Amino acid sequence: MKMEKIAKTITTRQEDYPRWYQDVIAAADLAENAPVRGSMIIKPNGYAIWENMQAELNQRIKALGVKNAYFPLFIPESFIKKEADHIEGFAPELAIVTHGGGEKLAEPLVVRPTSETIIYDSFSRWINSYRDLPFKINQWANIVRWEMRPRLFLRTTEFLWQEGHTAHATAEEARDYAMMILRDVYADFAREYLAMPTYIGTKSASERFAGAADTFGIEAVAQDGKFIQFGTTHDLGDHFSKVFNVRYQDESGQLKNTYITSWGVSTRMIGSLIMAHGDDKGIILPPKIAPTQIVIIPIGDDSTVAEAAKKLMMALSEKFRVELDNRSEMRPGEKFYDGEKKGVPLRIELGPKDLSSEQCIAVRRDDGHKVTVSLNDNPLKEIGLIIDDIQKNLYDIAKRRIDEQGRVVNSWEEFKTVIVNNQFAHAHWCGDPECEAAIKEETKATTRVLPFDSEVEGEESGCVKCGRPSPDRRRWIFAKSY
Amino acid sequence: MKMEKIAKTITTRQEDYPRWYQDVIAAADLAENAPVRGSMIIKPNGYAIWENMQAELNQRIKALGVKNAYFPLFIPESFIKKEADHIEGFAPELAIVTHGGGEKLAEPLVVRPTSETIIYDSFSRWINSYRDLPFKINQWANIVRWEMRPRLFLRTTEFLWQEGHTAHATAEEARDYAMMILRDVYADFAREYLAMPTYIGTKSASERFAGAADTFGIEAVAQDGKFIQFGTTHDLGDHFSKVFNVRYQDESGQLKNTYITSWGVSTRMIGSLIMAHGDDKGIILPPKIAPTQIVIIPIGDDSTVAEAAKKLMMALSEKFRVELDNRSEMRPGEKFYDGEKKGVPLRIELGPKDLSSEQCIAVRRDDGHKVTVSLNDNPLKEIGLIIDDIQKNLYDIAKRRIDEQGRVVNSWEEFKTVIVNNQFAHAHWCGDPECEAAIKEETKATTRVLPFDSEVEGEESGCVKCGRPSPDRRRWIFAKSY
Repeated sequence: MKMEKIAKTITTRQEDYPRWYQDVIAAADLAENAPVRGSMIIKPNGYAIWENMQAELNQRIKALGVKNAYFPLFIPESFIKKEADHIEGFAPELAIVTHGGGEKLAEPLVVRPTSETIIYDSFSRWINSYRDLPFKINQWANIVRWEMRPRLFLRTTEFLWQEGHTAHATAEEARDYAMMILRDVYADFAREYLAMPTYIGTKSASERFAGAADTFGIEAVAQDGKFIQFGTTHDLGDHFSKVFNVRYQDESGQLKNTYITSWGVSTRMIGSLIMAHGDDKGIILPPKIAPTQIVIIPIGDDSTVAEAAKKLMMALSEKFRVELDNRSEMRPGEKFYDGEKKGVPLRIELGPKDLSSEQCIAVRRDDGHKVTVSLNDNPLKEIGLIIDDIQKNLYDIAKRRIDEQGRVVNSWEEFKTVIVNNQFAHAHWCGDPECEAAIKEETKATTRVLPFDSEVEGEESGCVKCGRPSPDRRRWIFAKSY
Repeated sequence: MKMEKIAKTITTRQEDYPRWYQDVIAAADLAENAPVRGSMIIKPNGYAIWENMQAELNQRIKALGVKNAYFPLFIPESFIKKEADHIEGFAPELAIVTHGGGEKLAEPLVVRPTSETIIYDSFSRWINSYRDLPFKINQWANIVRWEMRPRLFLRTTEFLWQEGHTAHATAEEARDYAMMILRDVYADFAREYLAMPTYIGTKSASERFAGAADTFGIEAVAQDGKFIQFGTTHDLGDHFSKVFNVRYQDESGQLKNTYITSWGVSTRMIGSLIMAHGDDKGIILPPKIAPTQIVIIPIGDDSTVAEAAKKLMMALSEKFRVELDNRSEMRPGEKFYDGEKKGVPLRIELGPKDLSSEQCIAVRRDDGHKVTVSLNDNPLKEIGLIIDDIQKNLYDIAKRRIDEQGRVVNSWEEFKTVIVNNQFAHAHWCGDPECEAAIKEETKATTRVLPFDSEVEGEESGCVKCGRPSPDRRRWIFAKSY
């Protein structure tokens, strides 16, 4: 692609945050809207981020003994209708195939909005005995949910995801498993790999997955204080196993229902990542996820510099994903700008003067600091320390930010002020869906999660809106959301 | 899954080859038919084979500088209709979405049967200058083509594949690229990784991709002499670049059409693999593709044996994908049978007697030979040699078989005999589609490819059916096919 096509001014976050988000995606050449409204094209720079996410998550999921499989895109309409809450929740979002092979179909097919129904139909044939449990399956697939207000990565009619499905002998085991995936896989991955602090906890009934006994959520926080649902895990109880007849013989030969979980994260994670770390120059990729971790830019046309740059690239490639930017048609300044927009964590500048001093200049994308690195000693080690520090620093910056954005509020006036000021609220809530709806109506803020890890437990207090007692005796997080 | 569910008798190849194919897939627990006719569920054992294929091919494709991206599942009907041959070819196979988000759509959407149209619409925006060429994109995706006579892996309404798309400055470069992918990526992968000899060459006009200037095919040979299209690459000429306006400015500033290629292989490769190497006991996986390369089976309940087996597993895991089958509810004989059905290339038996002699028994899946391996020396090395030899032997067996199955025929009587006898024919053909249709009508054999690498070139001879001169002066391959 030509330089001019992707170079464009990025709106500042201050000026217009959603517009900044769009600009940043265009500047880094990550994705664009497709001809079909709501669909997106994930361009190579964006897809490379997805591939790294997939590789890391896939490894973590497999380490739990979960096996990958693949289930069909098309689901008979009758399957979707079997679980009453499920069809009610998904009906408005379905894409329907009515014609195939030149003929009208006898039964319309649903393009999967999620795969519970078709997978548990299989589970009913595959699971027989207590020896088969827990039964653990995952698939990487594309999903279609009709989207009226699309936004790249965050809300698209088609998206890519992983969906895990497990069947257990007891309700407790299933519930624990759904909570474990949230904490040990998703939140750990977000923290350790994406340098993203998140909130994990229970969703309110109104935000529950259609057909679940309970939904647990992991929520990321954008720089404008809005929340982004990063992923969810569901304790489906025996709702689906009853309608799909997923039963097993226990040790005494009795036929029993299984208890099922499902859980997923999607290309939405890319949107959360951008909103967590970007600045007015563009995206900032934490080193662990960055497709290119280091870009080396030779300064001037000196052939000894070109050679030294190549040698440095070879040396650093032992441990890092390195790119040597030796495009002849661009000036160094343009290359600096290009690397910044693409969020490359570390830039290395190497000119004739540097070379004669046997050093190079490393420029950090996270804070712009320049560090002189000797080429004589082992540069791999020093660069490694900088890379590690960038990863850590990005987490720390984000953590400090969300700690500031989150306010403990005890009155309705405080609540409204906090939400208006692009912050979010830790507040007591009576648990009544009508009260929740009234809060949303007035402030656009919704319950995000009741955090698993409250700093204060057993705290007695009244609902921030209506004053009635808070049954959870812990504070919910309320925020606006994408 | 319980043992009983997957244990079933396998029909012999002699008795009923297509039935054998089905049985073998069930016995190895690779896949099953889905509730929607024509769709399949790829079970963990089958999906693990696909993952290994993907990983290896992905690496080879990326090494060529091709970048992965993702394009939408839904294509506007108007796009598909832009290239006249393209819509004519695909119309009978399309699945159409007419409703989305609870409403009838203004324009119906096609579920992608392939992505040329939507990708070249993007190319028209992304490609501007000669500097952008060659432009190289690949995607891994699911594809839908309505299938009336489904067969697991070989013909399914939905399948998984990779599709590469490249745009070039000249017609020659595009044509060479399409041929290069066939030979250097697909055929090399089949030979080196899947231990499969294949035929590569040009397809006849009647077998050409809808909208292509030329289609090149790689064809595998089943044990019953029928051919399986393993993959294709297409020289699309400027057919699509003209209708989608994929143009570039050359060095002198002139606007020119690009020349485009597309190329793909799919889950069909798994079907070809099964048919290439299986025997009456089930599938045989070449070591390089096998999800489990070695299964270790301890004999008896001796705890020192259990410990030695575990130690051996750890040692072999350094280099191989090893499974220790220590299921307590199964006898060793059942485990042997289980490993054979699943096509595990090498089984290692370890009993108390073996252990006291400081050895184990390695049993090859390809030829059943038993080899005594000392546990004292480095077993990794000796096992490594056996594994390499299994890979090589599987190729050699398949190569000998297809060399025998392929017959040089010079008369119509010979031709018919060869086809009836589950062999295939190297024969001259006049090039007339009517003659090709008559041959198919009478024998069910079709032109598979005009091989790139003919042993004899410039050979003058008449068409095996009508006697008219063969314009190619080389022999076509004719065979029945799946």
